[in-house]
Amino acid sequence: MAHALPVPRLSKKSYEERVPALREKLVQLQVRLKAAPTKVLLIFAGEEGGGRGEVINTLSGWLDPRGMETVAFREPSDEERERPVMWRFWRCLPALGRIGMFSGSWYTELLRAQAGDGPKPAHPEQHLDHIRRFEKLLSDNGTLIIKIWLHLSESDQRRRLDELAANPDTAWRVTEEARRHQRHYERLARSSERLREATDRPGAPWVVIDAADPRARNLEVAGLVTSQLEEHLLRFEKPRAKATPPSMPVPLRPDGLAGLLALPLDQKVSSEDYESKREKWLGRLNRATRAAQSARRSIVFVFEGWDAAGKGGAIRRLTSAIDAQDYRVIPVAKPTDEENAHHYLWRFWRHLPRAGLATIYDRSWYGRVLVERLEGFCTEHEWRRAFDEINDFETQLAEHGTIVIKFWMHVSQDEQLRRFREREQTAYKQHKINAEDWRNRDKWAAYEIAVGDMLALTGTPEAPWHLIPANDKRHARLQILKTSVKSIEAALGL
Amino acid sequence: MAHALPVPRLSKKSYEERVPALREKLVQLQVRLKAAPTKVLLIFAGEEGGGRGEVINTLSGWLDPRGMETVAFREPSDEERERPVMWRFWRCLPALGRIGMFSGSWYTELLRAQAGDGPKPAHPEQHLDHIRRFEKLLSDNGTLIIKIWLHLSESDQRRRLDELAANPDTAWRVTEEARRHQRHYERLARSSERLREATDRPGAPWVVIDAADPRARNLEVAGLVTSQLEEHLLRFEKPRAKATPPSMPVPLRPDGLAGLLALPLDQKVSSEDYESKREKWLGRLNRATRAAQSARRSIVFVFEGWDAAGKGGAIRRLTSAIDAQDYRVIPVAKPTDEENAHHYLWRFWRHLPRAGLATIYDRSWYGRVLVERLEGFCTEHEWRRAFDEINDFETQLAEHGTIVIKFWMHVSQDEQLRRFREREQTAYKQHKINAEDWRNRDKWAAYEIAVGDMLALTGTPEAPWHLIPANDKRHARLQILKTSVKSIEAALGL
Repeated sequence: MAHALPVPRLSKKSYEERVPALREKLVQLQVRLKAAPTKVLLIFAGEEGGGRGEVINTLSGWLDPRGMETVAFREPSDEERERPVMWRFWRCLPALGRIGMFSGSWYTELLRAQAGDGPKPAHPEQHLDHIRRFEKLLSDNGTLIIKIWLHLSESDQRRRLDELAANPDTAWRVTEEARRHQRHYERLARSSERLREATDRPGAPWVVIDAADPRARNLEVAGLVTSQLEEHLLRFEKPRAKATPPSMPVPLRPDGLAGLLALPLDQKVSSEDYESKREKWLGRLNRATRAAQSARRSIVFVFEGWDAAGKGGAIRRLTSAIDAQDYRVIPVAKPTDEENAHHYLWRFWRHLPRAGLATIYDRSWYGRVLVERLEGFCTEHEWRRAFDEINDFETQLAEHGTIVIKFWMHVSQDEQLRRFREREQTAYKQHKINAEDWRNRDKWAAYEIAVGDMLALTGTPEAPWHLIPANDKRHARLQILKTSVKSIEAALGL
Repeated sequence: MAHALPVPRLSKKSYEERVPALREKLVQLQVRLKAAPTKVLLIFAGEEGGGRGEVINTLSGWLDPRGMETVAFREPSDEERERPVMWRFWRCLPALGRIGMFSGSWYTELLRAQAGDGPKPAHPEQHLDHIRRFEKLLSDNGTLIIKIWLHLSESDQRRRLDELAANPDTAWRVTEEARRHQRHYERLARSSERLREATDRPGAPWVVIDAADPRARNLEVAGLVTSQLEEHLLRFEKPRAKATPPSMPVPLRPDGLAGLLALPLDQKVSSEDYESKREKWLGRLNRATRAAQSARRSIVFVFEGWDAAGKGGAIRRLTSAIDAQDYRVIPVAKPTDEENAHHYLWRFWRHLPRAGLATIYDRSWYGRVLVERLEGFCTEHEWRRAFDEINDFETQLAEHGTIVIKFWMHVSQDEQLRRFREREQTAYKQHKINAEDWRNRDKWAAYEIAVGDMLALTGTPEAPWHLIPANDKRHARLQILKTSVKSIEAALGL
C-alpha cells in the first residue's frame, strides 16, 4: 500500500500552470484507451471531508466525457437485493475502452458499517472474500483498478469541516454523520486501515493520497491516474500472442474423462412407461417450483451437452410444468457488442433470476472451458483461470440461496450421427444443423477431454453436475425431471 | 377486430400431420426475420383457461429458440415503479430480428383491474392512451404487433376448468381467481371486449382465436403468425429508399426560427460578478435538488446547443452543486448495437433516473430532428413523426412527476469560429474538434431551420425550452443555474 507524503500548499497560480499539461496527457491516454482491450476502474473512498465529490467533478471536467462514466450506489433496490450481493456491481461495470469513476463501491457498505452508519453485513469475512475475488477476476481480465483513499488527518478534517460549516452555501455538506466521524476519528482511521490492508492486493492496490490541500490533491490524483494508465496501456498495446489450441488437449483431470466414458448409455424407457411417469413428475416439479417461489428461492438450470443431445427438447418438457411468468430460457448465442465489452461472465450475471424465479441457460458460461478452450478463442491462462472463476460464481449463487442444477446430456458418437442425419432430412430441423456441428463432431475426442476436466473441476457440493445418459430421449427427459424435482425438494428441505 | 370462427375438434392424427409443415414455415420465416430490420411482438391474453401458457410453450418448441424470447411481467419492482409507467415495457422489448412472446403485457394491469384482481390504475383513460401511443410508435417503427385473445365461451371455460381440476397434476392451475372469473364470465367478457375495442388500432389489431380445442387453437395461432409475418417481411425485404436530405430544409414553423434569430447575444457578466452570484445560485441549486430528492421527484436535464456552445462546461458547473451519488451525466455518443436494434428513444428510456435522482443528457433524443433530419440518417416520415413521439415521451416523464429542464445553448457563428480555433490551438482541447464539426458548421443555416422547428414543435408547458444566450460563458452558466433552480423550485411549489 503506497503512502503519499503530505504535500505543501499549492498556490492557485502554480496549480493553473500545471493543469493544462495534465489534461492534455489525460485525454491523449483516453484516446489510446479507447482502442485498447482494457478498461479502468477508479475507486474513491476516504475520510469525511476528503473531497471525493470534488475530485470526481474535477476529473470529469478534465477527461473526455464520452469515454467515462461516474458510478454511484445508493441503498440496494429490490431488484438488487434479490440477486447475489455482487450483482449490483457487475451491472455497473464500464465497458472496454472506458473509465468508470466509482464514488461509492463494494467498499461502501463495509465502511458504513464500521462507522456505525449502516447495518453490519451478515458475513463480513465472506464479503471481503467476494471483494478480493471480484477484483482479482477483473484485474486478471485486464482491468486497471486504482483504489484511491483520500486521506485527511484529524486536525485537517476538523479544519475542513469547520470551513464548510462556516459558509452557508456549503454548510449542508457537514452532516450529522460527518461530525460523528470526526468525533470517532481515531477508531475509524484504524478500522478503515484494516479494511485497506485486507484488500490491498496485487492488481488492486490502495493508494492513500493526502487530501489536506485540494489543489495538490487534484494534481496528485490526476498524476497517479496518468502514470498508472500509461504503464498499463503499454501492456495492452503490444500485439497479443494469438492463442493456439493444441491439436489434442491434455486432460487436467483424467478421472473426469474416465467418469464420462464409464457412463452407461443403453437405458430405454417405453412410450407408455414414459407417458405415465412423466405426468407424475411434471406435477411434482410444478409443486416443487411453486414451493421454491413461496420461499423466494431462485433456480438456475444449466443445460450443457453434445450437439443434438436433446437440450432443447428436454427444456421444453421441463418448462411445460412451470408457469410462463416464472421462468426465462436464455439460449446462449453470439454475444452482443455490449457483452463483448465485458468479462465473459457478465452476460450470465445479467440474466440471473429475481427472487423466486428461474433462469434456464441453454448452454452457459461453460463455453469458456469447452469451445473457447478447444478453438483457441481464449488463451490457456484464461480458460485455466475460468474453473476457479466459475466455481466462485456458482458459490455466490448458492450462498444467495439460488438452487443451481447443472446437466451434462451425454450421447454416443453414433447416436449423434443418426440425429445429425435425421436433422438434415427433416425440413423443420434443418436450421439446427450446420457445417460447424460437423466440424465439432470431428473433434469429439478433444471435447471429451475438455468435458471430463469440466466435470471434475467444477462439480461442487453446492452445484454438482448431473450426467444424463441421453441416447434414449424419453429416458433423458425423465431423468432430468426427476433430478430437478429432487434437487429442488432437497434444497427446500421437503 | 377479426373474429375467428369456432373450429371443429381436431384429431391428434390430423394435428400431427399438419405440424411439420407449419414448423418448417415458422423457422424459415425466422431466418428471414433475422436479416430484416423489423421485429415481432406476440401479445397473448384471453379468458381464464384459454391456455396462454400452453400456446407459448408450443410455439417456443416450434420456433428456433435463438431468435425468440418469452416475456412475462410480475408485480412492478421498485426500480420500475420509480420510472414512468411504460418504462418496464420498454426495457423488455425484443431486439431487431427477434420475436418476443408476451405472456403478460401492458394489458395485464387493466385486465386484472377489470376482474377485480388488482387495483384500478389511477388514470385508466391516460393509461389506455399510453398503450395506444406506445403501440403506434412501435408499429410506425416497423414492429409487427400481433395481439391474440384466446377466447373460451362460458361453457367451454367451465368444462376446461373442470377438466383441469379433476386431474391432481393440473388442479393447481384452477386458482380461486380462475373460479371467480368463471362466476363473472358475462361481465368480464363485456369489459375485456371494451378494452379490445379501445385498443384495436391499425398496426396493432386484436385477433380473437377460439381456444376450445387446444390442437386447433395451436394451429390457428401458428397459422396466424406465419401469414402475418410473411406479409410483413415482404415490406421489409424490399430495398428501402435511401433518405436524401434536401440541400436546404424548408422550415415547418418559421416562428421557431424567427424566435431563435431574435435572441440577443451581447450579454456580458464580469468575472467578479460571476464569482459572487455563482456561489449563491449553487447553494440554492443544492437546496432545490435536495428538496426534490426528499420529495422523490426525479430531474431530467437536456443540454442541446451548437458545437462549442459550452454544454460540457455548463454541465460541470451545474453538477458541482449536486452530490455525485445523485446524478448521472449521459453523453450521447454512437449507439451500441443493442441500442441500434431498438427504437431511437430506447437508449434514452434506458437511462431515466430513479426516484429523486437526476439524469443529465449531454445531447439527447433531439438528435432525431437535428442531425438525423439534416444528414438523412432517417426518412422524412421518421423525423416528422419524431416531434409527436418526443412530446409524448416528455409528457410521460412529466406525468410521472419528473422535472424536465431543456436548454438550447445559442452562440453566434463568429463566436463558434473563435472557439473552434481556440480548441485547435489548445493541446487538451484538440480532441473536442474534428472534421465533422467543421462540416456541421458549413450547414449552419440548415441547422438553424431544424433548431427553429424543434423549438416551436417541442416546447410544451410541461417541458419548455430555455434558450440560453451563450456567447459569454459566464452569462450562460449563470442563466442555466438560475433557470434550473427556478424550474425545480416551481415544480416543488417552493
